[in-house]
Amino acid sequence: MKVLVVGANGQIGKQATEFLHDYDEHHVRAMVRKEEQLNEFKEKGIEAVLADLEGSVDQLTQAAEGCDAVIFAAGSGGQTGADKTLLIDLDGAIKMVEAAEKAGVERFLMVSALQAHNRDNWNEKIRHYYVAKHYADKALVASSLNHTIVRPGGLLNEPGTGKIKVADDLPERATIPREDVARVLVASLNQEKTFNRGFDLLSGDQSIEVALNSL
Amino acid sequence: MKVLVVGANGQIGKQATEFLHDYDEHHVRAMVRKEEQLNEFKEKGIEAVLADLEGSVDQLTQAAEGCDAVIFAAGSGGQTGADKTLLIDLDGAIKMVEAAEKAGVERFLMVSALQAHNRDNWNEKIRHYYVAKHYADKALVASSLNHTIVRPGGLLNEPGTGKIKVADDLPERATIPREDVARVLVASLNQEKTFNRGFDLLSGDQSIEVALNSL
Repeated sequence: MKVLVVGANGQIGKQATEFLHDYDEHHVRAMVRKEEQLNEFKEKGIEAVLADLEGSVDQLTQAAEGCDAVIFAAGSGGQTGADKTLLIDLDGAIKMVEAAEKAGVERFLMVSALQAHNRDNWNEKIRHYYVAKHYADKALVASSLNHTIVRPGGLLNEPGTGKIKVADDLPERATIPREDVARVLVASLNQEKTFNRGFDLLSGDQSIEVALNSL
Repeated sequence: MKVLVVGANGQIGKQATEFLHDYDEHHVRAMVRKEEQLNEFKEKGIEAVLADLEGSVDQLTQAAEGCDAVIFAAGSGGQTGADKTLLIDLDGAIKMVEAAEKAGVERFLMVSALQAHNRDNWNEKIRHYYVAKHYADKALVASSLNHTIVRPGGLLNEPGTGKIKVADDLPERATIPREDVARVLVASLNQEKTFNRGFDLLSGDQSIEVALNSL
């Protein structure tokens, strides 16, 4: 599969890009916003493209041309205001869905947030962020794309364990290393049990392969 | 028609509520967030209900019970942050759509913003606000409700002229008094030409009746 990683300079996106680069069966294209990020990937021998989620759908469509799948791992991050949450996490994500449809991409994997589908269990402190994720996810579901919505718990920067727990609904507030989220995204690309559905994702005691196969 | 005005304490909502109260053919219920606002309406002999767009869909459903139509004229306003734009203008609006469906309401009239349907023509300074309005409108269109999306231009507090211009697309940046927007909402309730569609709205040279009938 040829996979466009959107938000390839982010913490999950970078790891997903590198894992994909290591696989013979996949090719990866890193989508980044800045010239210096572009060069960083190119120096590692990774194909990269410049495009901005605040830009036009046409520009994003060009970035996705020729890809079989999109992994959307972009986010406005905790340092910016809620206006950027609207522009990136909501509108940027939905523009990328539209772009993927226009470019003839078949698969779209979205990095969402634990319980984003369940309005009754949103973290009050960042409730507005959940609103953006919730409706971006809904737009993906309503699209024509074969989608997978991965909803990880609190993201940690520690090394992955390779052991996870997945389900429709994991209402407890728990965590997972970003590395494991990146591995789950890559493992989901061809895993039919993840097609056209979403799932909550936390650290657990099953291997990624066994856990995804149990969906 | 029994009409729930959501955001009845707002500048457009208050005028729409008062116009509806004056009509024999309509009954109005004002939905407000604060006790003192509730009393203000009750003192004028207007039915009022307390409910919060940041609250549950169940609470909003109760507020809408027994109504034939909802006029959504609420907004987080220019004084609050973009987090409230997400919570009120996006999630609040969509929760109200869900509540209307649950309560068996048939009609839903949304106060949107000029060109909110046209991503290429959003005001850059408040682009995030347009994102919220755009996706709230799309959720209403995707609902089962008979909808009308009224997209007024820059809102003025001066007295209405009763003369308007309406069309699918009015890309020029122009204005309209809030009083005229309130009158257009009330006039649209039973006007079949406005059913299941949206339109841009500006001051113009046609009467409201003639303009809506031309849609």
